[in-house]
Amino acid sequence: MTVVPPADVHRVGCVGAGVIGGGWVAHFLARGLDVVAYDPAPDAEDRLHRFVDAAWPALDHLGLADGASPDRLTTAPTLPDAVAEVQFVQESAPERLDIKLDLLADIDAAAPAGVVIGSSTSGYGMTEMAARCATPERLVVGHPFNPPYLIPLVEVVGGKRTSADAVAWASEFYRAVGKFVITMDREVPGFIANRLQEALWREALHMVADGDATVRQIDDAMTQGPGLRWAFMGPCLTFHLAGGEGGMAHMLDHFGPSLQAPWTRLTAPELTTELRDRMVSGCEEEAAGRTIADLVAERDRGVLAVLDALAGRDGHGPRS
Amino acid sequence: MTVVPPADVHRVGCVGAGVIGGGWVAHFLARGLDVVAYDPAPDAEDRLHRFVDAAWPALDHLGLADGASPDRLTTAPTLPDAVAEVQFVQESAPERLDIKLDLLADIDAAAPAGVVIGSSTSGYGMTEMAARCATPERLVVGHPFNPPYLIPLVEVVGGKRTSADAVAWASEFYRAVGKFVITMDREVPGFIANRLQEALWREALHMVADGDATVRQIDDAMTQGPGLRWAFMGPCLTFHLAGGEGGMAHMLDHFGPSLQAPWTRLTAPELTTELRDRMVSGCEEEAAGRTIADLVAERDRGVLAVLDALAGRDGHGPRS
Repeated sequence: MTVVPPADVHRVGCVGAGVIGGGWVAHFLARGLDVVAYDPAPDAEDRLHRFVDAAWPALDHLGLADGASPDRLTTAPTLPDAVAEVQFVQESAPERLDIKLDLLADIDAAAPAGVVIGSSTSGYGMTEMAARCATPERLVVGHPFNPPYLIPLVEVVGGKRTSADAVAWASEFYRAVGKFVITMDREVPGFIANRLQEALWREALHMVADGDATVRQIDDAMTQGPGLRWAFMGPCLTFHLAGGEGGMAHMLDHFGPSLQAPWTRLTAPELTTELRDRMVSGCEEEAAGRTIADLVAERDRGVLAVLDALAGRDGHGPRS
Repeated sequence: MTVVPPADVHRVGCVGAGVIGGGWVAHFLARGLDVVAYDPAPDAEDRLHRFVDAAWPALDHLGLADGASPDRLTTAPTLPDAVAEVQFVQESAPERLDIKLDLLADIDAAAPAGVVIGSSTSGYGMTEMAARCATPERLVVGHPFNPPYLIPLVEVVGGKRTSADAVAWASEFYRAVGKFVITMDREVPGFIANRLQEALWREALHMVADGDATVRQIDDAMTQGPGLRWAFMGPCLTFHLAGGEGGMAHMLDHFGPSLQAPWTRLTAPELTTELRDRMVSGCEEEAAGRTIADLVAERDRGVLAVLDALAGRDGHGPRS
């Protein structure tokens, strides 16, 4: 079906070069690929080069592929130029369905036959997004986590008209470029990780809205509590240990009734102006003068430190 | 109000010596305190000594207080013996309200006047739990995370009849023994961290119940994705970086509408036999032959590695 085997891809197109698209560009470059990027924003090219330069030390630390270089990034003046001669396309446009619908159709029209197209969407299904595509069989979701050049996870799932071959090819390709891939066999809004994250986020917003906790307390509760475990042991296996020797069976049989306890609000909060402002000022207080760039650098150092600490452990080996 | 200043406590009573109570015992011993433990289970004493011995290498690695020793643990034959001559009591009984109601009243009756009593409850409020206590003003929640000897967080909150002095004393005491304390000014079922964790857990159970994701996929999604960030940066500050230079304000203004997207089930799932069995067999598959003891040791090594990696960073300094 496709032009080259996943491991032989040497040139990819990246459409959209914001925080996520730029992260993909940096990641693909670090894996030794040629990258052709396209973003219609007027200052996109400069921003992208600065972004890649800022990410490069972290990528160097993790280990660059032979021949990897920021110089292998080119930017294309038009969308067709970006995808005409590549073996894979990653779309990372703003998260609006109307934008995705047209953009994916345009990419589909311009990319060589058989080339797989992955979308970074954080929640839409490909069935919905590929509605205007002529050859939807090659369109898949390839949802990364921010920053895509450091966080291993990519969730891969096709739409109703996506071929099984394209899903398999994309999964293999992402693995070949060092990502940890979860291939889903059905479309679920938000996929897996974002659903988990979103449930927690909605509860956090409720707590701030109701004055139960501040932004700082919520963040502290995570980083001094469950977050220290979730970096290397997921919620299920963590609770498997909460039941003592009886494991998950004892835990569910013992704590099952607490599922009925009023521990979560369960409905999404209304994003009032007051809640919005409280979240914003809470983050500003917590940032305490650190700019977004400071915090991004801090986050990257943190992820690197955690990845280094966990390197060699099961499921957390160094990226190839 | 209380017998000694929080930093001068040298002898504490621990009532209940299971996974959480045993963890407290190990932590207090490592901080150089004398600990008197009481647990009515027939094999509790042996189990507790084995537990402390298993935890000790990790505590040694983190740094023991002067004079700290497992030999400073004694077990008491009765509850009054355990609390009669201590300067603080930590209660870690099973999470059942009827048990807590009677036990806290018994502790309150036996502990010296003014001594603060902390409960490890994971979700009940002290107003409810202290209903049968003669001097409820000294009873506070001091909710730790598993394992209490490694995870820094303790959530402190009083009930309606708890004195502000007792809340302040307990917060200061837990800090003096090296914990990271969040003092809440109101009772919320589940406190902060458990509400966050529970919202995510309920969504995970829904996904397994509906066949959207396996136990393994949920755990992988966490450890390869958001979990790597949450070890050192909470959900709010993480999302502060999701909006690029615009921070949380841009993020909320941009992604606010997705709060209405069907990304969470929002109601707690029914714990059917089928769901229970699926969770249990999923954990067994993921454990792949590793016993609970193996996994506990693995978790402890992981938390230590993450704590080491983050040592010296803001908010993650080594414990005193």
